[in-house]
Amino acid sequence: MADKRKRRRPDPDSDSDSDTRPFKHLLKPDTTILSSLTTLAASTAASSSKTLTLSDLRLSAACREVSDLPPSAVQSAIESLAVSLARSILSGQGFSFTVPSRSSANQLYVPELDRIVLKDKTSIRPYSSVSTVRKTTITTRILHLIHQLCLKNIHVTKRDLFYTDVKLFQDQTQSDAVLDDVSCILGCTRSSLNVVAAEKGVVVGRLIFSDNGDMIDCTKMGMGGKAIPPNIDRVGDMKSDALFILLVEKDAAYMRLAEDRFYNRFPCIIVTAKGQPDVATRLFLRKMKMELKLPVLALVDSDPYGLKILSVYGCGSKNMSYDSANLTTPDIKWLGIRPSDLDKYKIPEQCRLPMTEQDIKTGKDLLEEDFVKKNPGWVEELNLMVKSKQKAEIQALSSFGFQYLSEVYLPLKLQQRDWL
Amino acid sequence: MADKRKRRRPDPDSDSDSDTRPFKHLLKPDTTILSSLTTLAASTAASSSKTLTLSDLRLSAACREVSDLPPSAVQSAIESLAVSLARSILSGQGFSFTVPSRSSANQLYVPELDRIVLKDKTSIRPYSSVSTVRKTTITTRILHLIHQLCLKNIHVTKRDLFYTDVKLFQDQTQSDAVLDDVSCILGCTRSSLNVVAAEKGVVVGRLIFSDNGDMIDCTKMGMGGKAIPPNIDRVGDMKSDALFILLVEKDAAYMRLAEDRFYNRFPCIIVTAKGQPDVATRLFLRKMKMELKLPVLALVDSDPYGLKILSVYGCGSKNMSYDSANLTTPDIKWLGIRPSDLDKYKIPEQCRLPMTEQDIKTGKDLLEEDFVKKNPGWVEELNLMVKSKQKAEIQALSSFGFQYLSEVYLPLKLQQRDWL
Repeated sequence: MADKRKRRRPDPDSDSDSDTRPFKHLLKPDTTILSSLTTLAASTAASSSKTLTLSDLRLSAACREVSDLPPSAVQSAIESLAVSLARSILSGQGFSFTVPSRSSANQLYVPELDRIVLKDKTSIRPYSSVSTVRKTTITTRILHLIHQLCLKNIHVTKRDLFYTDVKLFQDQTQSDAVLDDVSCILGCTRSSLNVVAAEKGVVVGRLIFSDNGDMIDCTKMGMGGKAIPPNIDRVGDMKSDALFILLVEKDAAYMRLAEDRFYNRFPCIIVTAKGQPDVATRLFLRKMKMELKLPVLALVDSDPYGLKILSVYGCGSKNMSYDSANLTTPDIKWLGIRPSDLDKYKIPEQCRLPMTEQDIKTGKDLLEEDFVKKNPGWVEELNLMVKSKQKAEIQALSSFGFQYLSEVYLPLKLQQRDWL
Repeated sequence: MADKRKRRRPDPDSDSDSDTRPFKHLLKPDTTILSSLTTLAASTAASSSKTLTLSDLRLSAACREVSDLPPSAVQSAIESLAVSLARSILSGQGFSFTVPSRSSANQLYVPELDRIVLKDKTSIRPYSSVSTVRKTTITTRILHLIHQLCLKNIHVTKRDLFYTDVKLFQDQTQSDAVLDDVSCILGCTRSSLNVVAAEKGVVVGRLIFSDNGDMIDCTKMGMGGKAIPPNIDRVGDMKSDALFILLVEKDAAYMRLAEDRFYNRFPCIIVTAKGQPDVATRLFLRKMKMELKLPVLALVDSDPYGLKILSVYGCGSKNMSYDSANLTTPDIKWLGIRPSDLDKYKIPEQCRLPMTEQDIKTGKDLLEEDFVKKNPGWVEELNLMVKSKQKAEIQALSSFGFQYLSEVYLPLKLQQRDWL
């Protein structure tokens, strides 16, 4: 670039290596950025060791969470339950299940844990009542099926489970709901029951792990990446020399970073659920965070759904709150695209989208949520979004060239430690 | 199983190895099934060598198809086009594009090829007309952007492309439509333009291939499998000792087969797009078929959409008919679940679903399609479906035990060479 005559006129789309792209000139050498990331990784690892639990807060009596159990433990739990039920029948006490309530009235956000958990309300599900006899039968049948799955140690989907007895279950929502009840009754996660969700996430970058006994090196997964396995209990032996985990909302941004092998310039693990987080990706992210003790930086759209997705990863969805400890990844940082980035990075007006009435309502609702309120920086950003009534997708950065995301925006964000 | 007292009462859900599962007793040793599959593979390889093309049919003048071109060739094609446009302007002929028509009136089903292709109708898109000036400008801009992509040899999504000039494109449907026009103008596939679709397919089994320079062994991809790369031009070096490719409609069935490592018992490659086929999976399947010359057996739901999905893989979707030669996989066999299987395999009544009015209409419409009509076996099955007004998902087989699909149904299908 010494020969100035070769310089072309500024062209935001030229995607060339000239310095005309906005803010490119602010970038320092990669070594500077890397040393800052090393500090972040070290401090995250140090703070990760003191993870709070319900019992630390002396809430374990009043609140309920489930934990991962091996198949043999689930099997024993079901057998013990069967024995106690038989005893109850023989002693004339009858046949009934005690089921923890999963209703929203029984849910509690615990700020210290930054998670939603279940309170201690339970209900009795007796076989001898006309109103509960069906549900009691379904519960018994699901317990029987889960026992078989754990015995053979195979994994099935909720849909498979439903089809084993359509006559009894009638509708998949019925077997699904009882499956969640069974998780709560046995005190174990749904994945411990060997019932798994369809996976749609992918991972690429500086991570080596075992999937069902095969060692996977995610730096050697090309551009497609490795599909995240549906059964987290067969995932193990995680090793990494990454400095952070980059959680990406969308497929297109993931693809850009994978093709550019962003993880080689800044050692990281790139993971995406391609939109709405699925259970398998949430479990996988949590496992990475827990085992590798790396900071998690999130790249989402600048709209209420971007923040909502971040919150599902971070503190769980309401309908699986009993499992929040195992599904959520604490301390996710909001890297971008943040509402304040729109002006800061001079995103052209035509690449911003007006928020719909529904968007604005969702944004305002989020401002009332505990997990947003506890982070003043997020509140500020969300207020700005709702006030400006503008949103933008990650792809809006393509207006400065296709590789602006991987070559300027993200490196600059990392350099400036610009996350909340 | 010698001790008969140990035999439990027949229980379709017991998932045990006893012989009580329907049709299990019909299964011959795997070696018998394997030798039958070897014959199938050999005959497929022999017939694959004589693939017909448009020019074999002397239709190349009247019909139009596009082909895969390397980035350098696309770049040259754009440069030649630019030069010819400049010449036209300088000679006083003005500035206009000649664009092949992609309308359904210009589409033709060629039975010999079993594909939809474009006829030779074109339209003129002059810059000097008020009605086409915008579209001409968009076409020029897209050509400019594609030229950049090919020069740098990077891949982007349609969404990225749209965001490079929102002011001009206004709406993504406009840049998407012109992108298809540009494919037709240059005579190359959309993937040659380095514009790729989001991938969602996965592959597992007896396949080794390179993805962006990394060698991938799909027998070592655990249960999650390998995500199919979005950019087929970086996929190569395919090697396999499989006897067939098993194309699976749904995620859950894929998962069952991956966990049971079905491909080790019957050497095969298992691939799924998790529902509606995406472009990346269609390209990948075709590439496997062409390079490995293996038979493709399809496992889809027994409903009109299952057959429709099969047809998209087999002979293309109407809105990308110009690209049908590169996107379609000829000679896919319909393995199951077929309407006749419902009675043959005694699928319980409660696991069958009634077809809706819309289902029945879709089924009747399919009976009018050329690609169905040319296969009498398919017509017969579809007639049976429409007459019985019953459909069933692959998962309905779970009513005989979770592993019935991988342990009885599929092996028996293969043994009986029961495909159409």
